[in-house]
Amino acid sequence: MTGTVVALSGGVGGAKLALGLARVLPEGTLSIIANTGDDFRHLGLAISPDIDTLVYTLSGLVDPAHGWGRRDESWNFMTALAQLGEETWFRLGDTDLAMHVARTRRLAAGEPLSQVTDRCCRQLRIATRILPMTDDSVQTRVRTDAGWLDFQDYFVREHCAPAVRELAFRGADAAQALPDAIAALADPGLRAVIICPSNPYLSIAPILAIPPLRTALSQCKAPVVAISPIIGGRAVKGPTAKMMAELGLTPSAREVALHYANLIDVFVVDEVDAGMTEIPGVRMQSAPTLMTTLEDREQLARIALSAADEFSLHQSKFRLP
Amino acid sequence: MTGTVVALSGGVGGAKLALGLARVLPEGTLSIIANTGDDFRHLGLAISPDIDTLVYTLSGLVDPAHGWGRRDESWNFMTALAQLGEETWFRLGDTDLAMHVARTRRLAAGEPLSQVTDRCCRQLRIATRILPMTDDSVQTRVRTDAGWLDFQDYFVREHCAPAVRELAFRGADAAQALPDAIAALADPGLRAVIICPSNPYLSIAPILAIPPLRTALSQCKAPVVAISPIIGGRAVKGPTAKMMAELGLTPSAREVALHYANLIDVFVVDEVDAGMTEIPGVRMQSAPTLMTTLEDREQLARIALSAADEFSLHQSKFRLP
Repeated sequence: MTGTVVALSGGVGGAKLALGLARVLPEGTLSIIANTGDDFRHLGLAISPDIDTLVYTLSGLVDPAHGWGRRDESWNFMTALAQLGEETWFRLGDTDLAMHVARTRRLAAGEPLSQVTDRCCRQLRIATRILPMTDDSVQTRVRTDAGWLDFQDYFVREHCAPAVRELAFRGADAAQALPDAIAALADPGLRAVIICPSNPYLSIAPILAIPPLRTALSQCKAPVVAISPIIGGRAVKGPTAKMMAELGLTPSAREVALHYANLIDVFVVDEVDAGMTEIPGVRMQSAPTLMTTLEDREQLARIALSAADEFSLHQSKFRLP
Repeated sequence: MTGTVVALSGGVGGAKLALGLARVLPEGTLSIIANTGDDFRHLGLAISPDIDTLVYTLSGLVDPAHGWGRRDESWNFMTALAQLGEETWFRLGDTDLAMHVARTRRLAAGEPLSQVTDRCCRQLRIATRILPMTDDSVQTRVRTDAGWLDFQDYFVREHCAPAVRELAFRGADAAQALPDAIAALADPGLRAVIICPSNPYLSIAPILAIPPLRTALSQCKAPVVAISPIIGGRAVKGPTAKMMAELGLTPSAREVALHYANLIDVFVVDEVDAGMTEIPGVRMQSAPTLMTTLEDREQLARIALSAADEFSLHQSKFRLP
């Protein structure tokens, strides 16, 4: 099948599938709507962790060991910063720093984040469009037993240790969805929307918290396929399972499916979760979802796209006389 | 002799003598009033070239090959910046960058430059006080045949190639002199003021362009000793001699002495200029002024201080009954 594809993604886990999609789809047909709820200012620099992870992953610059940051990174800036007695809890590599310095300068000069990101993608020859969910500020905040924390304070400084009781996306209600993101979801040639296996509560929820984006997704004509970030009750990476338990949810693929139920058509779970109880209105599909190699990513991308195509075909059959 | 000493300094040449002074004087007795006319914003970062050169020189971090920047520097940030298609004409090393990022953040948070500098000195265990001439913005500008240029555009981007016709220090008239600098010059225990062999027109002139600083210097009770940056008609480093010719001045030690004549008591020239015609009201002293080794710097520092002490003694003799 042909057509355009939109992916919703956070950082590392999502970027892996985004890379798979970018590699199996015809060049220029993929747009990724990226979470910017984790964006923050540190040392005066504008940092967009999920956009950077997508940029580095899609350009091949990513550090393969971590899935974020740049490969062959050096840390001389951090060493000098420590020597000056400055804050060092958030580590910025020497080459990674170029992204933040350039972004900070351009934002200060009035360029919107989407334009800064687009320029960067063209410069690094990334054919996939990376679309920040909004050019406005949305801040993911985490209520813990010790009170509200900014996301990076929770995630990096506190190493996700505090128990999470509630999440909020400050500014999301009033944020203008990126027009290109809305347009991508309304594209008559849209083949599928893929919700990447990012943290549903931390990384995908901020995107869906922007009312026009949520509306555009619910009204979109193409099948919406989500991939479970939970495999056999555990998260592949990050605090998803721990956080689900803290929020009073069962850390399971089924719980994630229920979370997405009224937005998605197909839910892809790992083979170990193949026996899970069906959810009305959601097609279940099982597949190997752990992405270790590049081939894993491409394979999962093909499976997600096929699932969307089959769903479309199925729908058409029922619609035909 | 005991007492405090104030040095006026720009970048590399001045910092060499400043280091010599810091090493031969009792700890904590030296204050350096630093030129900030070269300060500028680049990539959104607040850069203070002369302060940084002084900080790096006095802390032992300086790159001995250049006399500015940090030793064992790496340039991975610049490589990544070029990859992103950003401006690279002003090169910022990975470790040097820590200074600019920290300064930019602190200035944005409302800390004055003097406090930022002082904190940095304490952190790097520099016992000498480095005092920015002002916490206000003063910008050295250069009129060339192609029009007015900001200093760094002239100095770094254009490699000092355009002929200089005029210099201006934007903001100097209205700038508040740093109170600590005024106080240092008014200190009753002041032993000497040393005008370092920096470029008189580019590096020392901005300091003297701030009216209260110029007044404080002319009214100061201690002898004022300047060291010629011109040796045998040539500048040791930088565009001093070329610029003097372009400004219609003879590139000579004597011309510099005339420039300083009504502000100084003693002028130290190199031995090759020992025969120069006397200038009324200025004691001439010749000495080896080329500072190659650390010993050269200490020796010149001792000579400058002795010249000041001798002048004081001479004055006292005449004053005594």
